[in-house]
Amino acid sequence: MRGRFITLEGGEGAGKTTQRARLAAMLREAGREVVETREPGGEAGAEAIRTLLVSGEPGRWEPVAETLLHYAARAQHVARVIAPALARGAWVISDRFADSTAVYQGAGQGVAAATIRAIDAASLAGFAPDLTLILDIPVADGLARAAARADTNRYERFDAAFHGRIREGFLAIARAEPGRCAVIDATRPLDDVARAIGEAVGARLGVTLPA
Amino acid sequence: MRGRFITLEGGEGAGKTTQRARLAAMLREAGREVVETREPGGEAGAEAIRTLLVSGEPGRWEPVAETLLHYAARAQHVARVIAPALARGAWVISDRFADSTAVYQGAGQGVAAATIRAIDAASLAGFAPDLTLILDIPVADGLARAAARADTNRYERFDAAFHGRIREGFLAIARAEPGRCAVIDATRPLDDVARAIGEAVGARLGVTLPA
Repeated sequence: MRGRFITLEGGEGAGKTTQRARLAAMLREAGREVVETREPGGEAGAEAIRTLLVSGEPGRWEPVAETLLHYAARAQHVARVIAPALARGAWVISDRFADSTAVYQGAGQGVAAATIRAIDAASLAGFAPDLTLILDIPVADGLARAAARADTNRYERFDAAFHGRIREGFLAIARAEPGRCAVIDATRPLDDVARAIGEAVGARLGVTLPA
Repeated sequence: MRGRFITLEGGEGAGKTTQRARLAAMLREAGREVVETREPGGEAGAEAIRTLLVSGEPGRWEPVAETLLHYAARAQHVARVIAPALARGAWVISDRFADSTAVYQGAGQGVAAATIRAIDAASLAGFAPDLTLILDIPVADGLARAAARADTNRYERFDAAFHGRIREGFLAIARAEPGRCAVIDATRPLDDVARAIGEAVGARLGVTLPA
């Protein structure tokens, strides 16, 4: 039986990596094989592309070139990691996926939505997550959390207006695709967020998770 | 007055780099500012992408990911080097451009032509060369010349059937777009090839070049 593909989305400092580990632990306790991965990256070639994307100055890439780099990494990641794992029955949880490109390069950097959709269709031929959890947090809170980490990246150096568009962009996707997306209030304590995620996964994907 | 964009295409070892320099010298003698460039690359970010493309094993990239990487580099190259040069009136000569992706990733690696066209449209919004010179040479001759160079690259390590599809792919483009493309017999001595290129450029783009 094919596994399920879950993506965690949200702005900088929303807690995606932490919550990915919590959800993976719950799913493993429920008997699932789980693959934890991330974008950009998650595969050898895709990680090499990630280095080009997360380092350097904010203006390093033309927005459409940046979109194409993200999809090049994603095509590798899907073909060589995600699709094979789902085919053998594993559940895959990715820290970011295509919604991040729609929001960062679209709402954030101004690439036309139709352009991103055309690149998505050419790259992935319709492949999409079964469930997307959007971790929502006010911009200032997220950037403060992200700044406290050792590994600040290129996207964190974009300006506050950019990050405001990112938050609104994710919420707009959730409104447009309520069947695929669930918005999680990520301002709460970690345990509460993990519980809310477990409930959303249980309800949407029909799996019983430990409390 | 806008400059002109000329691309040199063909398989490995066809003499594109040598003939680019010869054509540039003729155009400069005729009073034009000339920018000589190459793909993948020709711009700082695009050269970083080039490193990912020309190094490593033949199977390193999924064909569609490889297509996206070429177009990411191309979008940077056009926006930051080629279009600004043309706008100030310079003539730009590029060793390879979009036809190489159509042929190497399409005919060579099996990416659907419609997929490549969709990525091209999303990336370049219709931008295309004014003239494409296809340097044609039998596969065995080209590979022998390429092998004699110090810097063999990843594409040269694809098999002979691949390179046969490359040659046929370029000739098919020339048949489909005779207004843009001129096929040059590149088996002849360098001076004869340079003269044929000069004649084609003179006739197609209305410039008088030194003999």
